[in-house]
Amino acid sequence: MTRLKEVRSAPPGETHETDAVIIGAGPVGLFAVFELGLLGVRAHLIDILDKPGGQCVELYPEKPILDIPAIPVVTGAELTERLLQQIDPFEPVFHLNEMADSLERTDDGKWRISTDLGTTIVAPVVVIAAGGGSFTPKKPPIPGIEAFEGKSVFYAVRQREMFRERTIVIAGGGDSALDWTLNLQPIARKLTLVHRREEFRAAPDSVEKMKALAEAGAIDFHVAQITGLEGKDGVLSAVRVQSAGRGEYAISCENLLAFYGLTMKLGPIAEFGIDLAENRIAVDTEKFETSTPGIFCIGDMAHYPGKLKLILSGFHEAALMAHGAFHYVFPGRKLKFQHTTSAKDLQRKVVGSAPED
Amino acid sequence: MTRLKEVRSAPPGETHETDAVIIGAGPVGLFAVFELGLLGVRAHLIDILDKPGGQCVELYPEKPILDIPAIPVVTGAELTERLLQQIDPFEPVFHLNEMADSLERTDDGKWRISTDLGTTIVAPVVVIAAGGGSFTPKKPPIPGIEAFEGKSVFYAVRQREMFRERTIVIAGGGDSALDWTLNLQPIARKLTLVHRREEFRAAPDSVEKMKALAEAGAIDFHVAQITGLEGKDGVLSAVRVQSAGRGEYAISCENLLAFYGLTMKLGPIAEFGIDLAENRIAVDTEKFETSTPGIFCIGDMAHYPGKLKLILSGFHEAALMAHGAFHYVFPGRKLKFQHTTSAKDLQRKVVGSAPED
Repeated sequence: MTRLKEVRSAPPGETHETDAVIIGAGPVGLFAVFELGLLGVRAHLIDILDKPGGQCVELYPEKPILDIPAIPVVTGAELTERLLQQIDPFEPVFHLNEMADSLERTDDGKWRISTDLGTTIVAPVVVIAAGGGSFTPKKPPIPGIEAFEGKSVFYAVRQREMFRERTIVIAGGGDSALDWTLNLQPIARKLTLVHRREEFRAAPDSVEKMKALAEAGAIDFHVAQITGLEGKDGVLSAVRVQSAGRGEYAISCENLLAFYGLTMKLGPIAEFGIDLAENRIAVDTEKFETSTPGIFCIGDMAHYPGKLKLILSGFHEAALMAHGAFHYVFPGRKLKFQHTTSAKDLQRKVVGSAPED
Repeated sequence: MTRLKEVRSAPPGETHETDAVIIGAGPVGLFAVFELGLLGVRAHLIDILDKPGGQCVELYPEKPILDIPAIPVVTGAELTERLLQQIDPFEPVFHLNEMADSLERTDDGKWRISTDLGTTIVAPVVVIAAGGGSFTPKKPPIPGIEAFEGKSVFYAVRQREMFRERTIVIAGGGDSALDWTLNLQPIARKLTLVHRREEFRAAPDSVEKMKALAEAGAIDFHVAQITGLEGKDGVLSAVRVQSAGRGEYAISCENLLAFYGLTMKLGPIAEFGIDLAENRIAVDTEKFETSTPGIFCIGDMAHYPGKLKLILSGFHEAALMAHGAFHYVFPGRKLKFQHTTSAKDLQRKVVGSAPED
């Protein structure tokens, strides 16, 4: 897990009113906060991941990106940090670990977005900046696992406290598996990490810490493959594993946390009633608005003639979108375009003084 | 004058063949080199100014710009430096101090661009990234000055050697006046700086150096206003000035260099035969191509529905333009789109290693 700047997170289940809801907190969703903010439009962001940055931090946090204008080399993690710093003056509110799963019109012509964790946000503008779609956990190929899902078996940790004093098996060899091993070990009754081989894809530092815990007897680490689950009515009693040395055996546990990576799906956006073509949303190139008034789409999910899936194109789309969104948020008000070199309020916040101060 | 990274400059008067000629070396023209370069398209740039950066370095080199994505604060001068660094791997060739002043089709369907200094460049693609137009010197309001222009009176220094062993008056109080005072003093027979008041708009460091030279008697500095010129047939013998203390008097000289600032004009582009509306060029939003095939326009001079004069929009336009330009440079070749995270050659050049190296 890349450690990113702390962001203003709202707890799930609350109801909010704001000016614009941005679905997706990847680089394009983040920069949309800036462009909206310049025009006085406040924003909330919803993202299925547990941190901002989207694909950039989830798929290639350390890979050098070379085509962000005026930044010759940057990693996805650094790019995200820089954008978070840039949008900070506009105080965006993040709803992380949540998936936008329904969209409806309110009686007064605004939009009501609800998430899978019961959060509701009402706003005149919705901006879909969902990249390739929602990151969804890959399911382990274990027979009968469906019966335990959401009861004893989980693919993400949404509330750490749920696992206090529990006997847990964590499966996987990436950053999520290792980070949660380190994170839950202090509160678990017993924790066993199962990975099919000795090598890990996770950060070397996390691997070393895990090995130290295993040597000290604070956790168990098994090189093995999970082959089945034991238990009934969704209540797990053990996972069955197969190892080269020991053959097949059982590890008793109450919970299995399986981290087998993420895959991207369009998800509930497909049900929002917006015109879609091959999982992409058609927009105009003037305001990047969809077929539904007040709903905009920018970044990789947007489609128009000439579209390239470049982060820098998403930035441009965010700027033009903001000028379109302004009129929904402030109907009848005239938009006065100004360059940031003369944006006094922002200059004061960012630089500490403003032109003609 | 902001000191910028040394760039590959070509001497005027030569003939070149390349893939794309970019008119304008402001931030958008510079980034166009990058996007073209990614697709294997080589570029030359022409700019009327003596350095890259355009308006950014000419009009507001030190003013903080806040809306370049992922760069919370940057000055025009820094932005230019960063872009020069980013495009360096693509080895762009600069034609500075030159104005693109004619455009014609060659027999084999390419474009031939000529400059006011006799440089000729032939290429299948022309990219107009000329911002607000050409920077043109403001003319001093001195009666009869036209008769001396280009013979004894100049508004820019194109060849420093022209002023060796000359008796020169420099007029003005900005960076150009001060920089050329410092720059020509070592080779001039005698140099006098005339400015209408004691205060300067130039860099304090240059002003101090000038004052030190004046105190040492290496130059003369007069606080006065130029009121007339003496001489005949374009050959100057003196400038007449008026000062608060001394009244009107003459300073003998062979040359007057007047630096009264720059103004922006569309310039010869208006004569290129491209559709114009209110000094802007209409383009499509798919490739940012003009009404004339093979001629593209990006940045502030481009016009399309929703257009905002933002540097970041010019960056996006450069990316889509490059994909359009590719087909003129490599007719029939298939363009394989790849992200820079997997662009091996560039990764090797910029980062020192490439994925799967």
